[in-house]
Amino acid sequence: MTSRKEVADLAQVSEATVSRVLNNVGSMKEETKHKVIAAAKQLNYYPSALARSLAMNRSGNIGVILPYVPKVNLFSTYFFSEILSGIGSASREFGYDLLLLFRSDDDELNYSQLFQTRKVDALIVLGSKDDDIEIEALRRLKEEDRLFCLINQHYEGENFSEIDATHVKGSYEAVTHLIQQGYKNIAFINGPISYSNSRDRLEGYQRALQDHGLEIKPSLLFKGNFSRKSGYKIASAIHKMGNQIDAVFVSNDRMAIGLQQGLREFGVSWDQLPGIIGYDDSDSAELTAPSLSSVNVPFYDMGKLAVENLLNRLPKETLEEQDHFRIQLPTELIVRESSIMPTQRRN
Amino acid sequence: MTSRKEVADLAQVSEATVSRVLNNVGSMKEETKHKVIAAAKQLNYYPSALARSLAMNRSGNIGVILPYVPKVNLFSTYFFSEILSGIGSASREFGYDLLLLFRSDDDELNYSQLFQTRKVDALIVLGSKDDDIEIEALRRLKEEDRLFCLINQHYEGENFSEIDATHVKGSYEAVTHLIQQGYKNIAFINGPISYSNSRDRLEGYQRALQDHGLEIKPSLLFKGNFSRKSGYKIASAIHKMGNQIDAVFVSNDRMAIGLQQGLREFGVSWDQLPGIIGYDDSDSAELTAPSLSSVNVPFYDMGKLAVENLLNRLPKETLEEQDHFRIQLPTELIVRESSIMPTQRRN
Repeated sequence: MTSRKEVADLAQVSEATVSRVLNNVGSMKEETKHKVIAAAKQLNYYPSALARSLAMNRSGNIGVILPYVPKVNLFSTYFFSEILSGIGSASREFGYDLLLLFRSDDDELNYSQLFQTRKVDALIVLGSKDDDIEIEALRRLKEEDRLFCLINQHYEGENFSEIDATHVKGSYEAVTHLIQQGYKNIAFINGPISYSNSRDRLEGYQRALQDHGLEIKPSLLFKGNFSRKSGYKIASAIHKMGNQIDAVFVSNDRMAIGLQQGLREFGVSWDQLPGIIGYDDSDSAELTAPSLSSVNVPFYDMGKLAVENLLNRLPKETLEEQDHFRIQLPTELIVRESSIMPTQRRN
Repeated sequence: MTSRKEVADLAQVSEATVSRVLNNVGSMKEETKHKVIAAAKQLNYYPSALARSLAMNRSGNIGVILPYVPKVNLFSTYFFSEILSGIGSASREFGYDLLLLFRSDDDELNYSQLFQTRKVDALIVLGSKDDDIEIEALRRLKEEDRLFCLINQHYEGENFSEIDATHVKGSYEAVTHLIQQGYKNIAFINGPISYSNSRDRLEGYQRALQDHGLEIKPSLLFKGNFSRKSGYKIASAIHKMGNQIDAVFVSNDRMAIGLQQGLREFGVSWDQLPGIIGYDDSDSAELTAPSLSSVNVPFYDMGKLAVENLLNRLPKETLEEQDHFRIQLPTELIVRESSIMPTQRRN
């Protein structure tokens, strides 16, 4: 590999001069500059990105924190794959590379260190939960005025920058649609309550029932973990309750598809299936039978906006109190076959 | 931010000593070591990852080259999402972070520079094509003995390290299965021929026909681009050919699903659909109706093996001629409903 010394020798200048020219630091005779650049080109010399970054104080990387679960194919889940596509696309527009940082629950959480050691210039946190350790790590970033934001998670009472979606409204509209179809006993399969979007959906579900004079029954609340398997397992409990349940609102499409599969295996026929609405509007929603009504969330745009909002602030490199952002993108109910009363479905 | 000087002052040693202790370089009295570490902890001092990497000559990043196509959600395609999950999981086991590098066709290709500027310690190239610019960039890495490998792409006559799958055999078995079902006029929708896996599949298709005494007809060869839309478009041409085609082998599931959808829109009923086999065995394969027979490719394991084979060589940091690896993982035919003769399908 070519060294700085070889460039200095060829250009007949000192090594320090080579550095100063290539890092564009200090003033210099035009002639010297040209000599150094010509020599560097001739020898195919690239100053180390690390050395250059040290001089510039930048890594050129945007970091993304992702939850790590062994053997779970994170990129295969619609939620993460869409958000990452949006983040990747916007990063590239800004000339930034994407540094993926996987963390598991038992890792020590020190987001600050990523900035202190200059691994990243900005940080996006995905899949964060409402627990003390997480909040502590985020507060510290905030205190240090770091450039970071959350996607799809809101912390009540904190001033973190966030890109979120209108999950209360999305859920309200989904459940209202089921009520308008004539369903009266609407169960709800929620995700873990440590996510703000789970609490948002619960709120939307409850409000819709209340506004239409329906009772909120704790026996109709089920808890899954967003996996297809968890929806599949809950099918058994829902099947046992017979006509105490005539429709189900489900917190993501994967669980809804698991529920459909489970019920089918109990021998529930097409025209006996409860009305079902999923959430996310993933690719699979139109592939299942009956095709799955769902709530569309603009995950791709959420990822894109996160990057744009962070990197547009980069000259300052910090996010001060008055500068933090909180953006909610709109959700949209997509009605397909699964939420229509069986008598009115085309077969 | 705490500086090295403050740590040195607190520990009452020189700045150089602080560096030597924290970078674990040279010998040192135990007492001095403890003093420095205690002071660094107390002051919450982390030596810059960049500075440390410069000392160690490492970035701690494994790079992944990905093709960039605007508005295509790369992470949502089964192929990339599975491989990246495998790469991500293995990188984490090695304590490495994942640097994603998006390149589009009109980017200047200089993989070498990523090593020269120390952005990465090892490189995995995904979705590379058989063109001169690509080969030139890879040859240069090879000449420089860089630590890199390809996944799912083979360059004839080159000694690049590769993790591939048995695509000739996988295709041969798929087409043989169709023949054994009684299909005689088997069309083939291939992907772009600039990928070695496309050429492999063509070879498997042709060999299977030959071995069973069937004619290879150029009129039965179709070309898609791996998108659902391209399969959907080809449905029209295949529909027009009527019973000149009774089965179709398709190079990935997305195109196969597009083909199913297209044929259905032409009013082709369940029992008139040609026999169809997809490729990849993606999540969607079991969701379509009829469920899609497909060839399973262990993409996740391919990603994992790539990382393991590269990083296990890291102490040397190079891949010499005798050291390069070429691994082919097995494919497997998964028979579902779409490839079964309609008379024998359960309905």
